[in-house]
This record gives sequence, structure tokens and C-alpha cells, in this order.
Amino acid sequence: MNYSSTFIPTLREVPADAVIASHRLMFRSGMLRKLANGLFAYLPLGLRSFRKVEQIVREEMNAIGALEIKPTVVLPGEIWKESGRWDSMGAGMLRVKNRLDNDFVVSPTAEEAFTAIVRDELASYRQLPLAMYQINTKYRDEIRPRYGVMRGREFVMKDAYSWHCDETSLDETYQAMGRAYRRIFKRCGLTVIPVKADSGAMGGSGSEEFMVESDIGDNTLILCKNCGYAANVEKAGCAPDNTTEASPANTPPLEKIDTPNIKTIDELCAFLTMSPQTFIKTLIYRAINVESDNAAAVPEAFFAVAIRGDLDVNEVKLAALIKAAEVSLAADADVTRLTNAPVGFAGPVGLDSLPLIVDHTVTAMHDAVTGALAKDLHYRHVAYGRDFAKQGSDGWLVGDIRTVKAGDRCIACNGELYTKMGNELGHIFKLGYKYTRSMNVSYLDENGKSQVPTMGCYGIGVDRTLASVIEEHHDEAGIVWPASIAPYHVIIVPIKYDGAVKAASDRLAAEFAAAGIEILLDDRNERPGVKFNDADLLGIPWRVVVGDKGLAQPNPQVEVKHRREKENRMLELDKAAGELTSQLKAELAELNR
Amino acid sequence: MNYSSTFIPTLREVPADAVIASHRLMFRSGMLRKLANGLFAYLPLGLRSFRKVEQIVREEMNAIGALEIKPTVVLPGEIWKESGRWDSMGAGMLRVKNRLDNDFVVSPTAEEAFTAIVRDELASYRQLPLAMYQINTKYRDEIRPRYGVMRGREFVMKDAYSWHCDETSLDETYQAMGRAYRRIFKRCGLTVIPVKADSGAMGGSGSEEFMVESDIGDNTLILCKNCGYAANVEKAGCAPDNTTEASPANTPPLEKIDTPNIKTIDELCAFLTMSPQTFIKTLIYRAINVESDNAAAVPEAFFAVAIRGDLDVNEVKLAALIKAAEVSLAADADVTRLTNAPVGFAGPVGLDSLPLIVDHTVTAMHDAVTGALAKDLHYRHVAYGRDFAKQGSDGWLVGDIRTVKAGDRCIACNGELYTKMGNELGHIFKLGYKYTRSMNVSYLDENGKSQVPTMGCYGIGVDRTLASVIEEHHDEAGIVWPASIAPYHVIIVPIKYDGAVKAASDRLAAEFAAAGIEILLDDRNERPGVKFNDADLLGIPWRVVVGDKGLAQPNPQVEVKHRREKENRMLELDKAAGELTSQLKAELAELNR
Repeated sequence: MNYSSTFIPTLREVPADAVIASHRLMFRSGMLRKLANGLFAYLPLGLRSFRKVEQIVREEMNAIGALEIKPTVVLPGEIWKESGRWDSMGAGMLRVKNRLDNDFVVSPTAEEAFTAIVRDELASYRQLPLAMYQINTKYRDEIRPRYGVMRGREFVMKDAYSWHCDETSLDETYQAMGRAYRRIFKRCGLTVIPVKADSGAMGGSGSEEFMVESDIGDNTLILCKNCGYAANVEKAGCAPDNTTEASPANTPPLEKIDTPNIKTIDELCAFLTMSPQTFIKTLIYRAINVESDNAAAVPEAFFAVAIRGDLDVNEVKLAALIKAAEVSLAADADVTRLTNAPVGFAGPVGLDSLPLIVDHTVTAMHDAVTGALAKDLHYRHVAYGRDFAKQGSDGWLVGDIRTVKAGDRCIACNGELYTKMGNELGHIFKLGYKYTRSMNVSYLDENGKSQVPTMGCYGIGVDRTLASVIEEHHDEAGIVWPASIAPYHVIIVPIKYDGAVKAASDRLAAEFAAAGIEILLDDRNERPGVKFNDADLLGIPWRVVVGDKGLAQPNPQVEVKHRREKENRMLELDKAAGELTSQLKAELAELNR
Repeated sequence: MNYSSTFIPTLREVPADAVIASHRLMFRSGMLRKLANGLFAYLPLGLRSFRKVEQIVREEMNAIGALEIKPTVVLPGEIWKESGRWDSMGAGMLRVKNRLDNDFVVSPTAEEAFTAIVRDELASYRQLPLAMYQINTKYRDEIRPRYGVMRGREFVMKDAYSWHCDETSLDETYQAMGRAYRRIFKRCGLTVIPVKADSGAMGGSGSEEFMVESDIGDNTLILCKNCGYAANVEKAGCAPDNTTEASPANTPPLEKIDTPNIKTIDELCAFLTMSPQTFIKTLIYRAINVESDNAAAVPEAFFAVAIRGDLDVNEVKLAALIKAAEVSLAADADVTRLTNAPVGFAGPVGLDSLPLIVDHTVTAMHDAVTGALAKDLHYRHVAYGRDFAKQGSDGWLVGDIRTVKAGDRCIACNGELYTKMGNELGHIFKLGYKYTRSMNVSYLDENGKSQVPTMGCYGIGVDRTLASVIEEHHDEAGIVWPASIAPYHVIIVPIKYDGAVKAASDRLAAEFAAAGIEILLDDRNERPGVKFNDADLLGIPWRVVVGDKGLAQPNPQVEVKHRREKENRMLELDKAAGELTSQLKAELAELNR
């Protein structure tokens, strides 16, 4: 492609709202333009790289046997009502009424559409497992879209869904997807942090997020300095602290103490000259839609939660532990009613009115202070297992429900944990029966008995992946594309596109093209400095400069430079295309290995 | 691909609402499923053919230098307000408000989006001409979607737009697009009828529609039996009839006659014993937004139109002739006010209050009857050029404004015209300045002067093109794909996928794959009859049957059959892949020639 025949409107100025490198560089290099807040148009250069990411995703999906289909972007509201998400999806889902007053959704995701298709066609266990995907337009109505395509309103997502007879089959596809995702990101030249939810608190739930480190990331990641452990703080588990206290055998008897006008843990610690680590904080939670083994979900339930005084409760982990759709702190009136005491004096001792959830940390507390379920009264010398949560008693559950923070110990190796901010590029998830049950999907098993399949879902944001490649691969001068995603492999820069230089440039372009190498030939009538700056900005892996001086050598020569390197070198014109083709094929092979 | 590894849910039953072949066969062959009225999901087999159409379109667009970009599907309402189409597009355009009360449109077309992008980047005449396109999702809220993807609500359209310094440059791109469209349809194996609007009445307007014949088509086409003339009835021109009357020199003097209680042309003809061809019908039209040379458009104007009594006025042609946005018959009150006579007695003689538009047919009328602008009075012996529309007089215009019908004479060769129903697959159109002016697009010309570019637009419906291929290529047993659009090139049918038959089938599949031929291997445990029926239904060009009997020959043999042919023949196993590969490459080359 000749530069003057395409449309690459490069910019020297950085758009005012572009605060991250990918946003800046996608605009400056003429890859992208803004149509409205959160809505972007890919221009020819940007679309080339975009399609390469799409194609890598497609190849890896096909390689594991997932089948590409194409449902519509505008979906009937009806199926979202069946699944219940018409109500639960919130205002981020764009709902539309057409002229006939039918409800539609501009697809934010497509569990319902895929499930509706499978529901109509699934008859026998012999059709399972089945995995299908699309690479298609999605819309989420971000209130504050920003960072260019990193957080846009419309984007392209690869979303795959799979259906299975049993958990073993689901796990096989889930694992294959995980391997495919690792290959996709590797081929794009991306360093991702796979974050397994089931390596931590939510054992066996089956969810893995693929994160890239980013200062503007939405997610706090908890990482171990020692082993490979990585988790989203929402779900991160941790090992119990190494501060086991004395056993209850040596604890003095439980004692009630007056704590007049003490309102906060800080005041209590000052009053008793103790650290918050000695305090058992007790919080009353309201849970919604709690799963139950033998009946429909319980719409509302209250729980008491005991945790060490210096820690915070992680509500996602808590909800997962008690299998609730959602948990939140109970209203003051409920606390008073249920604890029979003013807010601030809840404690686990003698609290018979509520099921008690105990954080792991509390199990090591054998001489603690806690509220005594009455105004201005606390207990001291409280021992776990002696004074509350006694063996054999009902209604209590022990688990890891604390919010992990830097400095905590790794659940896997006891190493020190630290944090990073990250952006999610992909997510694989065992959905289970949520959609297949609500949408009445069934098949006949080997015995002719009707069964409901279990389901997985697997997404990758194409735009965000592309932007993340730029975040990881750029320098001050511009983008530094990995060969696999580069819009072109080689940029040929004639010093002046005329005479012998033009002839040599055209010849090189033809040689590269014959070898399957994608060429941009800068035929513009611009100063060499402008062309070099644009070549750096565009980030094309190899630059070949063709000038009179090099061509005048006994063996005519051209100057070649890799975008990653500072130094250039001269190559014989006759050998340039051959040598760079070999190098590029090696680079591509390394990425695709 | 093995049949059992993909997802091809074939049906024996025809969906009740599928009344045309493509709708029926796309469902029966498992290419397509319905999500809701007018919303369809392409399943794996359908998507393969769909992508082939897309790719042919893409290659032909790239070949003429059009640049692919990707704007969003959800577009900001703001730019539609700029162009005026927010109001003029009607209820077929899906409008959405998001949570922040911003207006959006689910793209039915993208003149505004492309123009907005170009507006921001266009600086100099050196950037022109510029042609860009997308192949992307569109939505039009059909009230009564039907015929499957032939008239769906969501569909994929290739829409291209171009910008130019002058008419010559626009015409070059317009012609190149026309050639590209002819190639696209040829490569898809489609017989299209290119219908030029500017070969008829709307001279030079620059619009060509690519139609396929269809019983359920939306368009009436006017075709010449003799030459290649083809036009949409909305715009079709015709030659004057061969019924020239005597010259006015021999016409008796104008005479006023009483016609008591005569209300209709039929009554008048009976009363005067004459044919409607002798009558000059005069209609009063109201025109909206009439273009004017020296000022803004005239919002409302009235015109008298004279046409031979047996003919109808074509309002599209009339509006084009007088450069009005829209024309409609004037209200009775306006007719009475402007003609100073009751409705039914308008005539061109002495009608000074209105500009007069004269259909070509009237210019041959030299002894006619017409209304005398007074109750129960007509003129006879009326001669064009003598009694009205006299040379040198102002306010009259002659043109072709009749609705053409079967039996009329061809404007190009005077041959006989006939009609067909057709569906539009593509449309190329010289837009002119509509969007560039309303959206304030400009560039600096060679003299540094600001100029507004002129514009063209060019669309092809991908889904409709695919469905039309099936309409043209099917038989009672199923689809008969042209090789270029076939989801697979060869279907291998082992009589029983086991033992030596399995080994030979696998070997054949590998040989074909190595030659770049796309294979579907029917590895299902089904009776041969079921497999043969499905192979016919799916329409894959070549079928290779592998059975024990053929393999047991001294030279092991397989049976091959082309989908178009009834007879099969035996080929040596060793030579089958080679020979069919050659044949397929020849078929593809012929389509792509």
C-alpha cells in the first residue's frame, strides 16, 4: 500500500482527553477517531491491527473446536425477561423500543441469545459438549467512558458459550479455553496476569480473569512475591496471620466490663490499652437470595459476622461463602432488633438470634475483647471455641472473608502479598445452570431421561486487547508493534520518491509482497524527518530507507532498522527483502510458538 | 471439518412462514435460525457462505482503492440532526436514548458518520478523491419483516462513500464502483439487472440500482425486449408514442363546446365519441422545497401538468424535472382558487395563473380536447404550440413525466418495453452536496480557496445478496452453490465411517485440505440415504462417496458427482483429489474471471 493511497491522518497534538498511551497513540497515529463520547471509528490503519487481533482470537477458538456463529446485535427483549436479566442488568444495558412497541436490547453480552438457539436444537446428549462463539459488536452504556477504546461504550467482544452433560466435560472445555486465552495473549505479544478466582476463597467456582497491569485499571490485584498466586482483591484469599495467640486453656475466665461512652474501636483500644488485633468486630449483614439445599432461595436473611478488629469484611467473599446473591450491612433498626442492643455493642458471645459467620482470623483469638450485646458493656478474655462458636453448636460457619491487603500472607505459599492495578481483557467462567434452568434447556441423556445441561462462558474484549498491546509496546516516539499485530510489517521510506530511488523502492515493495510481507511505502512528498517521525509513530516493525547515497555504492545498499532498536545498518538492496522476510517470519513464529 | 464436529441442524420440515426458496433452504440446511421477527442468527454453515460474500465485496472494494474503516453501529443522534435526517428518516430508523438522555441511532446507513470523520480530517484538495467503506451491521425497523434475511430488520451492508473536488472525479469513482459491483455479483454467480436511473428521465442524476428478478420483489422494472434498457418504474423514461397527429397548420380553429354534467374523461369520451388519447388531462400539483437558481429553495409552489388523457403522471419523474423535494396533487380548494373553475375543468389554454409542465406526449397533440377553465365547458381543436405553450411564452416546461407501462416504446431503441418484479441488491448514487453542505465540509483548492466537496454513496446488502444466490441456484432437493460462495467445496460421504472406508475418506480429506480445498466429511453414523439427502440440501458443489465396493476394485475407486449434475462417475481414489481440485479451481477461475 502506498502511503498517499491510504488515509493515515497523523497528529502532532495529543487530544486533551487522552491521558493514557494507547488512547494518545491511537489518535496520533491516525488509527482511531472519535464519533462521540465512548464511540470511536477505526480508520484504515487501526482496522488492520484490529482485524489481526480478531483473527488470532478466531484461530485459537477454531483450534479448540468452538464454532463461530453470528446472532444479531439487536436482540429481542423477551429472552432477557426469561433469564431475569431484563430487570437485573441495570441501566448499563441499552434498551430500545421499536415502532411496534417491542422491547429490544443492544447486546451487551449474549448468554440468552446463544442459549435460545441451543434450546431449540438440542435433543440428545450426543450433541454435547457444544461450544459456539461470535466476534461481534457489543454496547454497554458506560456513564463515564474514557481512555479511548479501553473503556468505550461500543466495542467488539469475542464471546463464547459452551454446554455440557456434566462438570467434567465443562471443566475440559474451560481448561481448553484457558489454554487458548494464554495463546491468544502470547500471540498478541501481551503479558497477562491470569487471576483464578478458584485458587482463593471461591474454591471450585471456576472463574479466571486475564488481567494486564495498568495504572488506570479497574481492578486491584493481589499478587504473591514468592509463588505465582494472583487474585482479584474482590475474591483474593489469604493464609491466616502468623500471630496465633495462646490456647484457650490458658485464657482467664470471661469477664464483663463497663465501657462508658465508648463508641469506636479506636476509643475502646485507647480505653483498654490494647491493639485492634485483640478486638473481635461483629457486624450484622443482610443477605438477599440465599441458596438453600432443599428449597427455593431464601429471599432475605440476616447473619452476624465476626472478624478481627483491624480487618475489613470482603462482601464478595462473604456472599460466596454463604451462597447469597448479595450481602450488605443491615440497617441500624435491624441491628438493634436482632442484637437487642444499640449499634456498636454486637458480639458473638450469647448471640443466639442469628447464624454466626466467623472469619479465619478469629479462630486464633483466645483472649479477645468484644461487644456484650448491651449498652456500654464489653466482654474481655473472650476465647473462640470456649465462649462462642463452640463445637457441636449450630448456626456458625468459619471461612476466609477478610479483604486481603498488601503485606498479608499468600494462601498458597505463605509468601508476602502485594497489590497492582489491572484491567481485565478476558474472563472464562463456569456459569452452571443459571441460564439453562431459567430458559428451560434440556436434552435426553443415554437413558432417555430429560436433563438440563451445564454451561460455561468465555469473553475477550478485542478493542481493549488491541489498546493493551500499545500500552505494553510503545516508547516516546510512538507505537512499537509486535509483528503479529502490526498494521504493516515493513515501511519503505524513499528519501525522495523519484528516479532510481523510486525504482528501487517499488522493486523492494514488489519483492516483499511476493513473499507475503505487508508493506507501507511512504511515497509522500515530505521531508525525510517527517517521514521518519511518522514511521516511528506508526510503529511498523521494520523500516527500510532508500536513498541515492546507498544506491550509489558499488553494491547498492539500503538502510534497515528495527523499530525496537536504536541502531540501523546497511543491507544490500538485492538481499534486503530476503533477509527481512526471514527475520519477520522468525519474529512471527516466536510469537505464535 | 467433520460433520459431527460442527453444528448443522438440518430440517425436513419447512418453517410455516418461509414462502420463498432462500428462506426455506437457509432454515432447512441449518444455515440460519430465527431469534425474533426479522432477526436471524447465522449458524456455522451459513456464516461460512456469508463471510465469502463479504470477502468478495471487500476484495472488489479494495481493488478500486476504497479504504475499509469501522465506525460504530450505535451512532450519535447529533450528526443526524445536522444533516436533517433525524427528522426526515421516519420511524424505520431505530432511535435510542441512553441513561444520560443522549440521542443515539442504531445505524440504518452512515452518510453522516463518514462525513463527520472526513470533515474533521479534510484540509486540502490533495486528499481528494477519497473513498471509504465499511461492512457492518445495520438496522431498519421493517414493520413487516419477511422472507428471511431477504427483508430482515438487522442486516449487514457494505456502504461506501466518496468525496471529490468535481463532478468528473465523482463520475470516475462512480463508474469504478459500477464495474466493481458487476464483478461482485458475477463472482457470486448472480444474474443482476443493472437499472440506470440516468438512462431515462433523470438525465445525469447518477444513480444505478442492481436488481435481481424476484416474484416477491419490491420494485417494478421496465425492460426493453430489444436493447439492454432497464429502469425502475419510478424513474423509467420512454420514447414518445408513434401516433403523431396532423400538424397545427391543418387544425381547425379553437372552439368552446358545452359539456353539460360531464364529470369524467370516460363520460367526455362517450359524449364526444373520441378516445382518451385525444384528451389533454390537466392536473394541479403542489410542490415542496423547489430548488431555485438564485435563492434558497421555494418552500411551496403550485404547477399545472398537462398529459395525454390515457396516461398517468409519474410523480418521481415530475419532482425530478421541476427539482422539487416532493410533489402531490393540490387540494380541491387550491385547484378551484388557482384555475378559477370547479375541479374537473382545468386545461392549459389561457391558464396564466400557474407555470405549466407539459408531458412529451402532449407536444404531438394538435387537435385535442381539454377543459376550458369553466363549469361544463371544454375546448376542442386544441393545438399544442398554437393555443398554449406558445413559443417565447414563459412558465412552461416540456419533459417526460408519464408512468411507463408494458407496451410503451423504449427511450433508447424504440423497442417494446415489458415489466418484471425485482429486488434491489445494490445501489450506487451520486449524492452531490446534500451532506457536505448541511454538515459544513470543506477543503482548500489549488488556489487556497475554501470549497465544498461533492459526494457519492454505494451500498450492497450482504444478507440479501447471499439469499439471492440461493434463489437463483437451487432445485427441489436443496441449494446448488456456485463454488465461490459454497460453505465447503467438497463433501466426502463414507457409506460407513469405519475401517478401510474411514481410512480412504480421511486420506482424501487430507489431500484436499493440502490443496486448499474446503472439505466437509460426513462422519455421522447415519444411513447413506440420509447423508445423500443432506448433501443435496446443503448444496456443496462436489460429492465424493467412499464405499467398500469401490475400494475393492483392482484400482480402488470412489464415486464423484457434481451437485448440478444427475449422473455420477467413478474416479480412481489416487486421482480423485487431484482431479476435483483442478475442476474446482477452473470453476472458481471462471466465476472470478
